[in-house]
Amino acid sequence: MPFVHISLRAGKPPAYRQAICDGVYEAMRETFNVPEDDQFMTVSGHEAADFRYGASYLNVARSDDLVFIQITANATRSVEQKKALYQCIAQRLGENPGVRAEDVFVNIVEVAPENWSIGHGLAQYA
Amino acid sequence: MPFVHISLRAGKPPAYRQAICDGVYEAMRETFNVPEDDQFMTVSGHEAADFRYGASYLNVARSDDLVFIQITANATRSVEQKKALYQCIAQRLGENPGVRAEDVFVNIVEVAPENWSIGHGLAQYA
Amino acid sequence: MPFVHISLRAGKPPAYRQAICDGVYEAMRETFNVPEDDQFMTVSGHEAADFRYGASYLNVARSDDLVFIQITANATRSVEQKKALYQCIAQRLGENPGVRAEDVFVNIVEVAPENWSIGHGLAQYA
Repeated sequence: MPFVHISLRAGKPPAYRQAICDGVYEAMRETFNVPEDDQFMTVSGHEAADFRYGASYLNVARSDDLVFIQITANATRSVEQKKALYQCIAQRLGENPGVRAEDVFVNIVEVAPENWSIGHGLAQYA
Repeated sequence: MPFVHISLRAGKPPAYRQAICDGVYEAMRETFNVPEDDQFMTVSGHEAADFRYGASYLNVARSDDLVFIQITANATRSVEQKKALYQCIAQRLGENPGVRAEDVFVNIVEVAPENWSIGHGLAQYA
Repeated sequence: MPFVHISLRAGKPPAYRQAICDGVYEAMRETFNVPEDDQFMTVSGHEAADFRYGASYLNVARSDDLVFIQITANATRSVEQKKALYQCIAQRLGENPGVRAEDVFVNIVEVAPENWSIGHGLAQYA
């Protein structure tokens, strides 16, 4: 059920954007108790004027290749699972499509299990 | 005050996208205690590489007509109201513009009443 | 760490969109305990069919210049800080780029400190 919004600068080829989705999905499978095929994501590309980041906030040297990954998920994971997810996403995206670890930004928004309907008008997790 | 983000594949005509907004609004009016004219929504269309879904996750047969509906709202509704909302959205979108119930994905993000300013720099619900 | 999504009608020039980002950042600096350079934002422009608002909900006279500002932040601010933020955003955007106070819509989504990784795969706030 996690629902993922990915935002990056416009202009990256489709294979690059798909590789990011693949990496996030694989990291969620590996560290976040996400079942097979539970992948729901959108990607948005933004022009320079529509994409702003603190280039060195907290001493992280970010670039225009920054990727914002906002994951809405059930509030059922531990802090340790979240830390493992972050590490795994950064590692996967570093391997493919080759995003620097400085450019991986992840945020998790947590909701209750009854806050999802993923088809047929039913509340599958309630 | 609900704020709704709708995401779907690019290419649907304006009337189709408006019908989705209408259906979500009417369902919120009917089941979610939403006052008249309390409708605030954006729609985003995505290319294939920017739109990913588990095509059969939880045995729901989804298609490229999948519609993601993310609703941010005050945390004041019961589980029963949420279930009624999901059913009503799926029914309305099935009638117009004709979205299959399998292709209706809804997620609710809940916030506190003081987390809104809907004009004039005031916190209308605080 | 606040992560901000700004949505408005398409067609505004880059300087206009940047002025909105500037104003939101400055207001967060001034009222919301946000450190220097802690600014992470995306802007999306929407066609008419993809942008809906209640034009007079709660007796606020909104126009097509409406700006939706959704801020995801740690759940560490008081109601008073939120009220100050709303006032300050409306004031700043009124000064530049000249958004009417009726057209400033703000929503805050709150998360736990461990829900962020803002580089290097680490959970900087956990």
